[in-house]
Amino acid sequence: MKIAIPTPDQAAYAAAQAHQNQLTKPTGSLGMLEDIACRFAAWQGCRIPTLPQAAITVFAADHGVTAAGVSAYPSAVTAEMVKNFARGGAAICVLARQHHARLEVVDVGVASPLPDLAGQIISAKVMAGTHNLAIQAAMSREQAQAALDAGSAAARRAIDAGATLLIAGEMGIGNTTPSAALICHFCSLAPTDVVGRGTGVDDASLTLKVQVVETALSCLPTDIDALGVLAEVGGLEIAAMAGFYLEGARLGIPSLIDGFIAAAAALTAQALQPSVADWLLASHRSQETGHLAALSRLGLEPLVDFRLRLGEGSGAALVLPLIASAIRLHAEMATFDSAGISDKV
Amino acid sequence: MKIAIPTPDQAAYAAAQAHQNQLTKPTGSLGMLEDIACRFAAWQGCRIPTLPQAAITVFAADHGVTAAGVSAYPSAVTAEMVKNFARGGAAICVLARQHHARLEVVDVGVASPLPDLAGQIISAKVMAGTHNLAIQAAMSREQAQAALDAGSAAARRAIDAGATLLIAGEMGIGNTTPSAALICHFCSLAPTDVVGRGTGVDDASLTLKVQVVETALSCLPTDIDALGVLAEVGGLEIAAMAGFYLEGARLGIPSLIDGFIAAAAALTAQALQPSVADWLLASHRSQETGHLAALSRLGLEPLVDFRLRLGEGSGAALVLPLIASAIRLHAEMATFDSAGISDKV
Repeated sequence: MKIAIPTPDQAAYAAAQAHQNQLTKPTGSLGMLEDIACRFAAWQGCRIPTLPQAAITVFAADHGVTAAGVSAYPSAVTAEMVKNFARGGAAICVLARQHHARLEVVDVGVASPLPDLAGQIISAKVMAGTHNLAIQAAMSREQAQAALDAGSAAARRAIDAGATLLIAGEMGIGNTTPSAALICHFCSLAPTDVVGRGTGVDDASLTLKVQVVETALSCLPTDIDALGVLAEVGGLEIAAMAGFYLEGARLGIPSLIDGFIAAAAALTAQALQPSVADWLLASHRSQETGHLAALSRLGLEPLVDFRLRLGEGSGAALVLPLIASAIRLHAEMATFDSAGISDKV
Repeated sequence: MKIAIPTPDQAAYAAAQAHQNQLTKPTGSLGMLEDIACRFAAWQGCRIPTLPQAAITVFAADHGVTAAGVSAYPSAVTAEMVKNFARGGAAICVLARQHHARLEVVDVGVASPLPDLAGQIISAKVMAGTHNLAIQAAMSREQAQAALDAGSAAARRAIDAGATLLIAGEMGIGNTTPSAALICHFCSLAPTDVVGRGTGVDDASLTLKVQVVETALSCLPTDIDALGVLAEVGGLEIAAMAGFYLEGARLGIPSLIDGFIAAAAALTAQALQPSVADWLLASHRSQETGHLAALSRLGLEPLVDFRLRLGEGSGAALVLPLIASAIRLHAEMATFDSAGISDKV
């Protein structure tokens, strides 16, 4: 079932671009920041956009494929890190505090039961982790749809709470393997061009990870649809992120894409509904192999490259002040006329 | 006369690095942000550095070489933009407000007299713009030294006002030409590898600009010292920026380097006193040709590349929140031990 996604306002984009060319600076000298301001103008439908209010939702889930030995950390770390989120000790918590962004953590499929964390974790568990995609479908189509729906619901909660810019983060030991499989499928790339070291596997595990992705992809029927691919080789938090982006776009709210897993989720959303990409903005280039190819397929260019490979939404949260700068410069700089400054010779 | 520059605390750097490896994230996954936090630890001499308070000083001056037709804008724009700084309409004013940074504008050599701007512009005019370096020395050694001293005085004012991180910006129509000459000289590079389009000159002016730099450099005596090079082919605001970096380093306060002109000033400071580079951090990669080579010679790697070519200190000001993030993550994240999280398998 297709959802209706609005078209960003191209007249507002053009008006914003004309305004940029009046500001007291050489034409084009603010580089990528000019386009960012204009994209927000198009999203908000006005020449001078207002500063966005960001909300971050971290989706957590486990992956049966960790049984194949594809991760440097044990599955138990997923639940342990969720508790760390609840206590405010994770990287994304620090960044959310710095940028005054709403932070919500949603359990869409953590394997172990989570203790009562004083209502700080939203429970939307679809299943207790996926099956091992190296030997069977990660989940059923119904489970994939339920995870997409959990993501949509989270986007609505964030928007109801005032968000005008969405960030999806993730925590799921093993999730670079399903992400690599999705990126390979949707970008028609070979696993060797996409699979990376994740949280830091050694050479032997990297070879194994490539084989797992190759095998999983080779089992996909040729006429499979996007929901089918997500169910076969995806992950619950990845599905939720895809639903989150789709619901944001449907409601006219842009999302800022984090790293490798976020790009896999965005590609999945794009396969379900191509125009979702009109509402996405890239943040950083991850260290993970294949991230740039995935962003390029989405028509996105990363703003920064700090050689991050952390996830959680951290790369997207880091660039929030840069987006604020782009919009403030657009709104607050004087024009050549208002400042009485001479134009080019 | 050499000044004494303290050595950053390498034991504090090592202690900070050990602390990074305890934080709840895969080792090294915060990429460049980890090194930034550790460098501030070394500068502040403690394992957990505090958030720096930034101050921005914009040095303004004119360039006689504009008579040679090397700039897209007329010299009059320098003074017009200085007034724009005083009224808060320039890009750097917007960024200083966003980041609550002290902003000071210093006239070290604007050609036209500036009106009374209610004390918002510090007057430290050494001369009314340099001579045309295409045909004579830009200034005397004494004038170069006076401009260096004006920069030192500005650094002391910023530090006295509480700054623990310095940014030097500049405004000076024509200043990419002397900057290119300085970078060519100090990096032993050919003008064609360094000279760029500045605020946006056309092909003919670019060719002319290369010729101007070639001629000026060919007239330098082989045994010339750094102060001599600065006087022959430099600029007043560039000299002031060099003095600003040197005085910051002497007082144990790091500087964040902006774009092409800032890199030329930093190279000049390095030629005067090599250890100044221990107290510098790069911010962005400018669109201007040769910027990366100049940073590399300083041992610096830019954090971001937004294709900026604006100057004013804008690129350095933009990355201030990223530095704050690096330090907050270092200080506020939980450790594996404190959070009870399993280590690698």
